[in-house]
Amino acid sequence: MTQMKQEEEITTEGELSGFIGHWLPKLEVEMQKVLQYRSDGFDTPHRSTSNLHYGMMHYHMGWVDEKMQPAIAGAGKRLRPILCLLACSELGGDPLNALPAAAAIELLHSFSLIHDDIEDGDEVRRHRPTLWKIWGIPLAINAGDGMFTMAFEAIQRLAQRGIAAEVTLHALKLFTRTCAELTEGQHLDISFEARDAVSVGEYMRMIEGKTASLIGTTIEIGALIANANPAQTSALQRFGQSIGLEFQIQDDILGIWGDPKVTGKAAGNDILRRKKSLPLLYALNHAGVGETLQARLKQPIDEGDLPEILEMLVEAGAKEFATEQLLFQHENAKNALKEALGDRAQTSALLALANSLLGRDA
Amino acid sequence: MTQMKQEEEITTEGELSGFIGHWLPKLEVEMQKVLQYRSDGFDTPHRSTSNLHYGMMHYHMGWVDEKMQPAIAGAGKRLRPILCLLACSELGGDPLNALPAAAAIELLHSFSLIHDDIEDGDEVRRHRPTLWKIWGIPLAINAGDGMFTMAFEAIQRLAQRGIAAEVTLHALKLFTRTCAELTEGQHLDISFEARDAVSVGEYMRMIEGKTASLIGTTIEIGALIANANPAQTSALQRFGQSIGLEFQIQDDILGIWGDPKVTGKAAGNDILRRKKSLPLLYALNHAGVGETLQARLKQPIDEGDLPEILEMLVEAGAKEFATEQLLFQHENAKNALKEALGDRAQTSALLALANSLLGRDA
Repeated sequence: MTQMKQEEEITTEGELSGFIGHWLPKLEVEMQKVLQYRSDGFDTPHRSTSNLHYGMMHYHMGWVDEKMQPAIAGAGKRLRPILCLLACSELGGDPLNALPAAAAIELLHSFSLIHDDIEDGDEVRRHRPTLWKIWGIPLAINAGDGMFTMAFEAIQRLAQRGIAAEVTLHALKLFTRTCAELTEGQHLDISFEARDAVSVGEYMRMIEGKTASLIGTTIEIGALIANANPAQTSALQRFGQSIGLEFQIQDDILGIWGDPKVTGKAAGNDILRRKKSLPLLYALNHAGVGETLQARLKQPIDEGDLPEILEMLVEAGAKEFATEQLLFQHENAKNALKEALGDRAQTSALLALANSLLGRDA
Repeated sequence: MTQMKQEEEITTEGELSGFIGHWLPKLEVEMQKVLQYRSDGFDTPHRSTSNLHYGMMHYHMGWVDEKMQPAIAGAGKRLRPILCLLACSELGGDPLNALPAAAAIELLHSFSLIHDDIEDGDEVRRHRPTLWKIWGIPLAINAGDGMFTMAFEAIQRLAQRGIAAEVTLHALKLFTRTCAELTEGQHLDISFEARDAVSVGEYMRMIEGKTASLIGTTIEIGALIANANPAQTSALQRFGQSIGLEFQIQDDILGIWGDPKVTGKAAGNDILRRKKSLPLLYALNHAGVGETLQARLKQPIDEGDLPEILEMLVEAGAKEFATEQLLFQHENAKNALKEALGDRAQTSALLALANSLLGRDA
């Protein structure tokens, strides 16, 4: 079925691009099949009247514009499903078997963004107006619920690919766990906005739920479909969890110190938004500068105030702390991958993809 | 395990009350077990910080008040899960096996109410403030998502009760279909608010999705767990679908002509709210009075205007039409039940429960 050679290592960057180029279109087709879902109980006229419900989901996926005309803008990077397929391949499985799970993971991620945008009041995503901005909050909440449903529909298609019912249920259990962790993390994230004091530990638990869990689970399910043994799947889950934390911490560092030309955001953007990211929280909890910084952030701030505030972050050692955490998670990730793959870990495509996403050379 | 006699007909009202009295506490325990869910990946401190996330769900279920102290007010009637357990029992199964599915159905219904309340801006449910009114829209959307997740968690517990993986997946498939129909129906319902003209056919499709689907599915899954044959489960699904439509149409009739002492709502309440229910929509689409009524409803109305508007509904024959539809669905329900149970249908506890809920004598 697939033109990729199975059970052969993907070691060079070109092979990784080849893998992604091969599987990305198949993933889109799988997700489109699921989102063409119509429940059985209704006749044709209903389908047309409820078209907008699924149409909103297609818009959010980047497949159509707001007039429901085909569009090619606005799709995400599909990082999570690619990690699922890659994990399956790395463990000697056929990624085709993991396709329904990969689609489910991306639909779940997409659903969570629909509701996040409402919860955060964000009006723009991927350079386009968000669902609620176009169709209003009630229909957008409901379209999110529809896409959440379709994520569960997608993962059940594993059984149609000939995956055993028990394995399908196992994948579903992991999938449901990550849904729960996602909402737990989101609960913390929303709660933090209303609080003055948030500890570094609380923050780490929030991003474990909101960001890292899904990346751990997508890799874990990919390995499960490849019939990896329990020790391997568990180690790969920890690998994913750690690179998920790495991604988020790097994002946090770049949100303050990143080059605007690279990030596309203004310098110090996260400071101006008072975003409770890791470096800022570390400084706010710092015995030396914490209270002064707290008081300063209660005043109005603009770009002219950035040097003064960044100076306080330097004094707290906030960038060093965040960088240490980044390296710590990187070590965790490498160790977990070695546990799962042994000597093959170093040349693993999973590590190569993680490194390339993190902008690392090796 | 259970003190109820199995495979024996529940024919008297007393036996029906006994059945409900026996299973209702077990259902609450099953749902409480599910909502004590904590994902595996987190340590203890996290559990306490995210307690409010699950606490909000407990509040919505009517188990605690807003200070998280035990409460006994505010729980729903649990009609849908009782129908699931009763269907299982009627088909000779042990309701204990269907308990996870019954819990899932009620959690799904409860989740949908959390989001409905946000979408409709409703501030009160069961005489208590709604989730969003207390904790704000962002946390309430997210608590709804959490409870939706827990509904899927609940149904997977079928496998833990020794139900075969294939049967569990089959139940899950029916469950997912009803989730989709629920969001499709809700999409139509929200869309109708912004429209002048809604046809009777569109309205029927909306309530098929929003109300009837879940009642059809809860009975279908109960029968499935009892190992009923496909023809029986399908007929029982149609029975449930029809009584679901009956409930809604009766609600629509009572919303306009019901006795305030019985309904607890003001006379003509749905007219004053301009609720697009079946009788009003029928009149609005009536060749004779439709346009006049439409124009009249665009003016301000209060209780003093009710006699004039109710007169237009009489002229259109709106109450007769709705009553005919009610009887039509009742015939559908009885025929479907006869298909499923043969001569036993007439004395079936499913019919007795439906009749008692509809206030019918027989």
